Amino acid sequence: MTVVIIVGTTETASIPGLSAAGATPELVAHTPAADAEIVTYGRPVLAPTLPVSPTGCPTPAAITRAVREVVGFDLIVIEAGLVGDTAAPTIHAAARPGADIRTSVAVPHANTIVRTAYELGRSIPAPELIVGESIPGGTTTALGVLTALGESHGVSSSLPENPLALKREVVETGLTASQISPGDVEGDPVDAIRLMGDPVLAALTGFVRGARTRGVQVTLAGGTQMLAVAALLRHGGDSSPIDIATTPFVVRDPSAGIERAAAELDVHLHVTDPGFDGATHPAMRAFSAGEGKEGVGMGGALYLAEREGVSMQQIRTRFVEWYEQEVVEDGS
Amino acid sequence: MTVVIIVGTTETASIPGLSAAGATPELVAHTPAADAEIVTYGRPVLAPTLPVSPTGCPTPAAITRAVREVVGFDLIVIEAGLVGDTAAPTIHAAARPGADIRTSVAVPHANTIVRTAYELGRSIPAPELIVGESIPGGTTTALGVLTALGESHGVSSSLPENPLALKREVVETGLTASQISPGDVEGDPVDAIRLMGDPVLAALTGFVRGARTRGVQVTLAGGTQMLAVAALLRHGGDSSPIDIATTPFVVRDPSAGIERAAAELDVHLHVTDPGFDGATHPAMRAFSAGEGKEGVGMGGALYLAEREGVSMQQIRTRFVEWYEQEVVEDGS
Repeated sequence: MTVVIIVGTTETASIPGLSAAGATPELVAHTPAADAEIVTYGRPVLAPTLPVSPTGCPTPAAITRAVREVVGFDLIVIEAGLVGDTAAPTIHAAARPGADIRTSVAVPHANTIVRTAYELGRSIPAPELIVGESIPGGTTTALGVLTALGESHGVSSSLPENPLALKREVVETGLTASQISPGDVEGDPVDAIRLMGDPVLAALTGFVRGARTRGVQVTLAGGTQMLAVAALLRHGGDSSPIDIATTPFVVRDPSAGIERAAAELDVHLHVTDPGFDGATHPAMRAFSAGEGKEGVGMGGALYLAEREGVSMQQIRTRFVEWYEQEVVEDGS
Repeated sequence: MTVVIIVGTTETASIPGLSAAGATPELVAHTPAADAEIVTYGRPVLAPTLPVSPTGCPTPAAITRAVREVVGFDLIVIEAGLVGDTAAPTIHAAARPGADIRTSVAVPHANTIVRTAYELGRSIPAPELIVGESIPGGTTTALGVLTALGESHGVSSSLPENPLALKREVVETGLTASQISPGDVEGDPVDAIRLMGDPVLAALTGFVRGARTRGVQVTLAGGTQMLAVAALLRHGGDSSPIDIATTPFVVRDPSAGIERAAAELDVHLHVTDPGFDGATHPAMRAFSAGEGKEGVGMGGALYLAEREGVSMQQIRTRFVEWYEQEVVEDGS
């Protein structure tokens, strides 16, 4: 199996209170590079730090890595607007970091990214792909894109208390700056991304469209950001069934309403429970309490492990070993 | 096991008659990108064509790929001056394509590449690495660097008849243009690369030095280009034992004199015979007749297969299947 992780950044993430993808706001921008390195090597290499939330919840990249160590899969990282260096081998999608969606244009070169990523998706030989992402602030840009398209679905959050009111305010400011109203770019996914999205959504949309054109079986791995990708595909005229693999932590989030949205977009939802509920270990307890929830392909990796007949106990054990090694020992 | 392949280009390869790494001179520049894609995916993806020599010998990348499919290894491709796009995930070593060594400066930014690659080698977590390369014209730049350092070793060739007189003439012109005589940059590996080398030699030297600093067990996979890397390490003050894994096709080349050179540089040579001699299949016959010989980690991959107890028959079978699929069917 091949897992693709598309990583990038948006200035939107620097709005205070939006994202839990980093211990401090300064470190958030480096989280996608660190995530790519963790899935590749098991730990950050050139990225300055291990991504943990302000309260200590580790990045979901650790669970994707645990699955990689137990199950094994080929990894392709696509670079869609990183800041700073990464030691993870990446394919470039002609992207730069995205602007704050509160400005008039969020991704000026959205069309170029979509086309470049489409060509990659159409070219890379693989019968089946699981596609995940890492971009702090990504649920806010997902809400921006959904709103611009006229889709009224909610979005999830990496924080236990979803700052949905703040997200809606940010999106409203962005729509005004872009001089559009909700639904104005219905049927135009590239314009929705250009005005209200981020470079990772652009690369996801192009890549997945390209792969599906060639008949590749694609599973989108993630929560509401992947729902936004599904909406972008639908608005681009793709009416074939879409698969999303995610975690129970997203499904449980009432503000996301992912099950209803999935039904409306004709998306088949695969939910794999890693069995963190009731765990005493802090690494699992944080996820169980609704932090992190999803990201860096976590839901898709768990789905793969389940399909391969690997027990969740094995994944949990590996994840806890990793946490003890990388967070507790290195952080002490 | 992790295999690192460092890929790049030098204008030196466009000198007629130097390299067999492509069917036509125009295609030679795309060979390293295609090689990276072949080891990654099994075939060229964005690179325009499958690298075969003018007489039809396939790229040694096919053998490294065959070993990858049979044995399995993690792959890291480092980009050190490609032209054109590649769909292979790569780490960037701050390199641009190298200039023709007949000009005054071959790699103006040699120092930056060495430093960037050193940092990567020092950072990437792995207990052991096999390091290969792909750069057409690379044996000529290797001769350039060896001569500049005052090392009188010969070099091998991807052509059955080594155009050594032409290489010497090119190197002589380059030394004159750089205003140095043989041995003038003894003890200064970065200057040797800057004046007479290529960006891949710069990245190899930095990366291997960085990895060895951290105590990683490094095997250089290749022929006389890796001997040049060994010389560069020696001139940089590294006196620890060096391992090179290569093919019998290089060892048999009398113009290369690799065994004597290895002994003089305190290099331990591992030679793994894939058993192509006496084969009737054209893919194996070309190598057996002295074409291709080595490259893209071939010798290191064969060495790894041998260490893992995989029979060469399995590698040969996979290689021939690949050739029938990718060269015969796609080319017909």
